[in-house]
Amino acid sequence: MHKSAARYLIFFQYAGTKYSGVMKTAAEQAVEGVENHLEIAVRKLKPVNEVSVFISSRTDTGVHALCNSAHVDIQRRGDKPPLLEQDLVDALNFHLKAEPIRITRAYRVHSDFHARYRAVSRTYVYRFAAGLRHHTEMPVTEKDLCWALRDTRLNIDAMQEAAALLLGTHDFSTFRALSSETPFKNPVKTLEKAQLDPGVSFSQRHFHRMCAP
Amino acid sequence: MHKSAARYLIFFQYAGTKYSGVMKTAAEQAVEGVENHLEIAVRKLKPVNEVSVFISSRTDTGVHALCNSAHVDIQRRGDKPPLLEQDLVDALNFHLKAEPIRITRAYRVHSDFHARYRAVSRTYVYRFAAGLRHHTEMPVTEKDLCWALRDTRLNIDAMQEAAALLLGTHDFSTFRALSSETPFKNPVKTLEKAQLDPGVSFSQRHFHRMCAP
Repeated sequence: MHKSAARYLIFFQYAGTKYSGVMKTAAEQAVEGVENHLEIAVRKLKPVNEVSVFISSRTDTGVHALCNSAHVDIQRRGDKPPLLEQDLVDALNFHLKAEPIRITRAYRVHSDFHARYRAVSRTYVYRFAAGLRHHTEMPVTEKDLCWALRDTRLNIDAMQEAAALLLGTHDFSTFRALSSETPFKNPVKTLEKAQLDPGVSFSQRHFHRMCAP
Repeated sequence: MHKSAARYLIFFQYAGTKYSGVMKTAAEQAVEGVENHLEIAVRKLKPVNEVSVFISSRTDTGVHALCNSAHVDIQRRGDKPPLLEQDLVDALNFHLKAEPIRITRAYRVHSDFHARYRAVSRTYVYRFAAGLRHHTEMPVTEKDLCWALRDTRLNIDAMQEAAALLLGTHDFSTFRALSSETPFKNPVKTLEKAQLDPGVSFSQRHFHRMCAP
């Protein structure tokens, strides 16, 4: 008999275009969060416990994640042994299949593990399409995957130089919004790396003719 | 007065997932071709002539194009001068905006130019996602952009060696389907280049953690 729930740390990715963000939205909202779909998928496994997915990192409307994480408890009926990590990945992906959300890894973790409080770092990727005269010039393969900078030339050297000033440990108090949670959050953060890489579009990687932007 | 139509060579790209292919479909078909939308966009420019878009390269259902081409004649009303090349690009993209189809270039060409008969070469790109155990493991950012090879290891060296045998000029008669058009098509083709490049996924390019496939 396995009376206690098994806790899992899951890593997942999503194309955020159609979601309100990662966090769960109330049932009456038209646009849903990624978390709604994760919880629906976990419930399809018919656990006996109430299902709550604890997301480590909030993302806003339209923002994608290559690797977000969360933890979830799953207690199976009767004498069923805990799900194996890979079986959990496969089962959740099976139930998510209509959604642009993919579970990439699952790890069984200790019952006091918390995805948000134990998170140690985050990486943000910002993608810009430079050199477009108009947003309609965005290549179809980059749609919803980058931000169009129209009539703008980036000075990568200057940006790299400015980014270097942010490296290290700083007090970011002046950059944050004030809220009731402010006193409980530490404004001192460490930026380990800030990197600017000139990229190429999907077309440019595959095709080297004049006509492919 | 500009009595004659101006002919343009246009280059365009599309995400083919939602189309029946590039070629025009009959009005009663539920799934449309890319050409239907190109012709609708050209008609929105209110030319006085009947609009026909002549596509250079056929692509099948679900196939994308980074750079297909076509020619089209546009005769404007009364004393309007022919559209400038860049204005044609912008106007067509404006009218196509709901569709994943983008005009990338337009060139005014001689009235006897034909996009299909004057085409001199084509480049095909085939993208495979290797190392997936199941199609649900496809990264969300690669959806509809590659073919999943499940439980398959590619031997790139052997493939490169085999591809080299196809280089040069050969008679491909035994590879083609027979149809009423067969006698009019030349089965002798020249393959200039066959290249295999190990690639990385969108995630791998941007993110170097264990969890990002």
